[in-house]
Amino acid sequence: MSNTFGQLLKLTTFGESHGAAIGGIIEGIPPGLSIDFDQVSHEMARRRPGQSAIASPRKETDVVEWLSGIFEGKTTGTPIGFLIRNQDQQSTDYDHLKNVLRPSHADYTYMAKYGIRDHRGGGRSSARETACRVAAGALVKQYLKTQHIDVRAWVSQVGSVSMSQPVALDTLYLAEENLVRCPEPETAAKMIAHIETIRAQNDSVGGVISAVITGVPVGLGEPVFDKLQARLAYAMMGINAVKGFEYGAGFAAASSLGSQMNDSFEIKSGRMITTTNHSGGIQGGISNGMPIDFKVAFKPVATISKTQKTVNLKGESIDLAAKGRHDPCVVPRAVPIVEAMAAFVIADMLLLSKANQPLS
Amino acid sequence: MSNTFGQLLKLTTFGESHGAAIGGIIEGIPPGLSIDFDQVSHEMARRRPGQSAIASPRKETDVVEWLSGIFEGKTTGTPIGFLIRNQDQQSTDYDHLKNVLRPSHADYTYMAKYGIRDHRGGGRSSARETACRVAAGALVKQYLKTQHIDVRAWVSQVGSVSMSQPVALDTLYLAEENLVRCPEPETAAKMIAHIETIRAQNDSVGGVISAVITGVPVGLGEPVFDKLQARLAYAMMGINAVKGFEYGAGFAAASSLGSQMNDSFEIKSGRMITTTNHSGGIQGGISNGMPIDFKVAFKPVATISKTQKTVNLKGESIDLAAKGRHDPCVVPRAVPIVEAMAAFVIADMLLLSKANQPLS
Amino acid sequence: MSNTFGQLLKLTTFGESHGAAIGGIIEGIPPGLSIDFDQVSHEMARRRPGQSAIASPRKETDVVEWLSGIFEGKTTGTPIGFLIRNQDQQSTDYDHLKNVLRPSHADYTYMAKYGIRDHRGGGRSSARETACRVAAGALVKQYLKTQHIDVRAWVSQVGSVSMSQPVALDTLYLAEENLVRCPEPETAAKMIAHIETIRAQNDSVGGVISAVITGVPVGLGEPVFDKLQARLAYAMMGINAVKGFEYGAGFAAASSLGSQMNDSFEIKSGRMITTTNHSGGIQGGISNGMPIDFKVAFKPVATISKTQKTVNLKGESIDLAAKGRHDPCVVPRAVPIVEAMAAFVIADMLLLSKANQPLS
Amino acid sequence: MSNTFGQLLKLTTFGESHGAAIGGIIEGIPPGLSIDFDQVSHEMARRRPGQSAIASPRKETDVVEWLSGIFEGKTTGTPIGFLIRNQDQQSTDYDHLKNVLRPSHADYTYMAKYGIRDHRGGGRSSARETACRVAAGALVKQYLKTQHIDVRAWVSQVGSVSMSQPVALDTLYLAEENLVRCPEPETAAKMIAHIETIRAQNDSVGGVISAVITGVPVGLGEPVFDKLQARLAYAMMGINAVKGFEYGAGFAAASSLGSQMNDSFEIKSGRMITTTNHSGGIQGGISNGMPIDFKVAFKPVATISKTQKTVNLKGESIDLAAKGRHDPCVVPRAVPIVEAMAAFVIADMLLLSKANQPLS
Repeated sequence: MSNTFGQLLKLTTFGESHGAAIGGIIEGIPPGLSIDFDQVSHEMARRRPGQSAIASPRKETDVVEWLSGIFEGKTTGTPIGFLIRNQDQQSTDYDHLKNVLRPSHADYTYMAKYGIRDHRGGGRSSARETACRVAAGALVKQYLKTQHIDVRAWVSQVGSVSMSQPVALDTLYLAEENLVRCPEPETAAKMIAHIETIRAQNDSVGGVISAVITGVPVGLGEPVFDKLQARLAYAMMGINAVKGFEYGAGFAAASSLGSQMNDSFEIKSGRMITTTNHSGGIQGGISNGMPIDFKVAFKPVATISKTQKTVNLKGESIDLAAKGRHDPCVVPRAVPIVEAMAAFVIADMLLLSKANQPLS
Repeated sequence: MSNTFGQLLKLTTFGESHGAAIGGIIEGIPPGLSIDFDQVSHEMARRRPGQSAIASPRKETDVVEWLSGIFEGKTTGTPIGFLIRNQDQQSTDYDHLKNVLRPSHADYTYMAKYGIRDHRGGGRSSARETACRVAAGALVKQYLKTQHIDVRAWVSQVGSVSMSQPVALDTLYLAEENLVRCPEPETAAKMIAHIETIRAQNDSVGGVISAVITGVPVGLGEPVFDKLQARLAYAMMGINAVKGFEYGAGFAAASSLGSQMNDSFEIKSGRMITTTNHSGGIQGGISNGMPIDFKVAFKPVATISKTQKTVNLKGESIDLAAKGRHDPCVVPRAVPIVEAMAAFVIADMLLLSKANQPLS
Repeated sequence: MSNTFGQLLKLTTFGESHGAAIGGIIEGIPPGLSIDFDQVSHEMARRRPGQSAIASPRKETDVVEWLSGIFEGKTTGTPIGFLIRNQDQQSTDYDHLKNVLRPSHADYTYMAKYGIRDHRGGGRSSARETACRVAAGALVKQYLKTQHIDVRAWVSQVGSVSMSQPVALDTLYLAEENLVRCPEPETAAKMIAHIETIRAQNDSVGGVISAVITGVPVGLGEPVFDKLQARLAYAMMGINAVKGFEYGAGFAAASSLGSQMNDSFEIKSGRMITTTNHSGGIQGGISNGMPIDFKVAFKPVATISKTQKTVNLKGESIDLAAKGRHDPCVVPRAVPIVEAMAAFVIADMLLLSKANQPLS
Repeated sequence: MSNTFGQLLKLTTFGESHGAAIGGIIEGIPPGLSIDFDQVSHEMARRRPGQSAIASPRKETDVVEWLSGIFEGKTTGTPIGFLIRNQDQQSTDYDHLKNVLRPSHADYTYMAKYGIRDHRGGGRSSARETACRVAAGALVKQYLKTQHIDVRAWVSQVGSVSMSQPVALDTLYLAEENLVRCPEPETAAKMIAHIETIRAQNDSVGGVISAVITGVPVGLGEPVFDKLQARLAYAMMGINAVKGFEYGAGFAAASSLGSQMNDSFEIKSGRMITTTNHSGGIQGGISNGMPIDFKVAFKPVATISKTQKTVNLKGESIDLAAKGRHDPCVVPRAVPIVEAMAAFVIADMLLLSKANQPLS
């Protein structure tokens, strides 16, 4: 199922970085949803290269052409086909890489697996594919909105620069007010400076995206293999450059005691809550109604302008310095990708829960 | 697909902690594999409660009854049904919990989701279900052995006690020589002491399991959503009490530079390798032939004997102190579970790769 | 997915004819369903060998042992594991067949596919596996009953003996009042006589099972590949010995005109109906609220006592006359299998429709 | 999975009859296949409306735009996205049908299921979607050709006109030499005359397509639910207007004896064959190396120019006479659709068998 994500709400994508187009098919969005196309454009702009001084200068207008499944502005319940033409295909930029196996890229593994590859811009392995996820995710987020569910992500770490404290939900909007998408304005400034320094060094740097999902009803997620956190982890680890995932207390739980980690139940305003939320909104693999929070670690972009040792297709040792356009730090542009994938997981599990209601 | 794991190599499990039996169905193991049943028993013993002074005293013989799919000692290619009877069903131990929603357990979420639950020992949410994974995993590991693939896990952290340095592959066997399954004998002793201290405090403690998979051919894993790391993360996050997953450089990559993280290719003894392995054996979602390594964070067991505040089914605030048998630290027993799930992922992707060979 | 049927309501089966046991795992039955175990036994008795003078004399008590997913008589929403021990394992009956490739059996194809097989009683290819479908189907039918959906099948043809006219829904109960399960008493008598004649000739004979599903709400089935008729056909053609499937007007539609076949809509008692039902209750792959009717053709049982030419594993030409116990005509015992599989399809599509409701 | 067909070789389609475009995504075709685009155009022409005097006059050039997954003329193993623009969108033809529920069409069931529909030309329920299957099937047939597998279909019945005898494989090419695609030239002439008569009566007529698949290796198909015939039936019953499926002896087997139907094995030229082929090339759900043959019954097209009684969205009884363009008999154009779907089933099972090889 490598190109399809989801069980009831599904996205299947196609396309290479420098082919004619990328696109996909969305299935399972309930019929009758009015689509806000401006909102889609807004999400695309958040991911688009060339959006700011700290992103790749590749120019893509990323206009989504919707081909089916929407009639007179509303979803019809039939599959939604869409297309994004590749415009800034400077394919000759990649001629010198035709026979090169770039370090920590997918060149070698694709050649070994398929015996053939579209070398231009990484072909299918390019993060350009994620534009499809953001386009589709924009629709899914609109669906979730009708269910009062909100998915928000932000940059909490860039290289050595981290946020100073946990974010308050009501200040999250600040993340969208700076280039790096960090809701702490001062930290954001430091992150931007850090990225600019790294770029000046012809290098790249990693980072962490944090996310929170609010409004999730109790009962989403399936016991055993399809725990809600398992589906979220699967979704996040399927994003390019992601190296780690944790939810709730995460890795810190490993060095903690049960008495510190357990979340006591209490009734507040007639509603069951937990006093703390080390569980990250999920218990036994099932949402408990508290906010679901998680973190995703990204490695530095593998493409750097520094000279590196590597090997070509003939097995000869060579020196390589990237000429293509690339991001010094991918995390600001990855924020809408994380949101899109999380939205897909939640909406899929929400639909599944509708099919699994107890007999009354 | 909540009770089925895998696409071509599949495990479907059933069973509650204190029902008649747990069991499962394994599909996709190639026909003609000779089964070593002693090896299965050995794996079961590694997971079994009551195996040592630092584990839960619940007594389960965990004898696996194989019901189909094996003829004259060999797999036939048909589904392998198996059964593990629940023996030490001290169900009355759980009578006092019938109406209690234990903190950080699945009591509340199951009731909300299903409107009904088998409260005894956590029912389906109990880690007892993982005995099925270990039984099935034992067969899968035997299959992988015929392909020269080896999956090994060990405890690298218990609470505040961590291993002092990365483990060498040739000392991994030491992990099985102590109760806590840590390959550094001195650290193991400290971990055991730490667990005993925690238990004396009626508390529990978390930990980290590390794993390495060797002998994996180049080319396993699928681009986009089914990246090998995404499948591994999904598998690990589906294990009870797991809070985080990372592979290769993991979260540390977030604070690193591209020039530090990139793995240069080189040819050694006629074989493509990378000089370093920050990629953790996976590039672009596809195995590159280097060892695949990852880490899994476990929270402390939620069941503790300390008194905690919680709520009962009527919504009344109550005090709770566990009476059931439980582990002060689950990671030593979880080592074979991590191995089993990793084995399933690799074997599934291996079978998939056989279907995806390039035309010659 | 060869051993799993269904998408949301799923049955996975295991087991060989003469192994320790057959059994399965049922997933997706909504929690809170009270199980009538007598009804299960009744369904098992309808399929059981040895039930009458015209069925195989193999003795199987076919007692279903329920292992999980049912608590205090009600489904819990967790997987329902079950087991049926094989009792009358006269395996030595099959020693003479170990090296024989029986005509129109699966001996040759299994050997070619798997390189190994459990030859006793056909192993996995035996229709004994369908006992699991009937056991599981009995639960599904109970679920459908809570939704006012009824699945009924009967024998409409045995060899050259066919029913004289279409059956009226209110006389369908007559089918269960004779050995051959035909609702026309006089035709039933002829069918029984026909079967007895065939058996006396050491031969076997085919037949047709007809079915009708009433109470199906409008809207079940998915356009394109998962049309309701496609799922029904898939379900029926997966039953041993089935050679053909048709619904509504079926093959007769091929020689008809559009003006004869089209079903006019009309409103009757405030409800949309069609004046005729050549559509068999399905239009555009989706149920239209009219009764769903279909027919399933069964070939004669391949096992006959007449001497036949065939080949052994060495490729030598040999003569074969069956010694095992077998049915001269399988259709009377296949009636509950057809019902079980149809129930699975409808219930699966019903659950799916709950997840696909339009936004209001 | 309503819009996706297949397990390892997959086709997902989108698109409505009168939307911007139809299209799809093909996954799983092995990398390295050289594509013959002329052959694709040839297949499209076989299905295209307006191709002859006995087909719908709708004009569609049906040019397939390939968007990804093919590099320098060869498949790369990544998903193949493609698009077919809708050109002859005479949508105003359908204004008068906006509120009409046409007899034996999907208008009513779509409205009931989705609460909204694109009424133009039947929207998603239109057989226009099958153009995607033919485009994708053209690639799959090219893949099968590299495996020496050939899928061929022809018209064996139109209304009351049937072929006089079973077709010989070496005369099948004759089917493509006449408008109705029947390999008996004299019968073809009668069929064409029959269709023209029916059209003159403002009516439509049904028919039967027969097919044979040669070169299939022994061992394709899975026991139990995914028998090869079950997958074929599912594929065929998912084609618009299909009412029945049978393989091998089919419905005729129901009135036959075991001694007539059993296929004796024999060794011929060192190869296992069966003397007869009532089994239709499949035993126990698995291919036995003999030709696989089956038949598919099509109802008459529901759109007829004769006046019919029906109901509109307000529930009022109305008279309706079709004004849109339509086929008097769909079977000649459905021949490449049957071939495409059969090719998908065989190729999918072939890939699956590669993953399931016995250990040597």
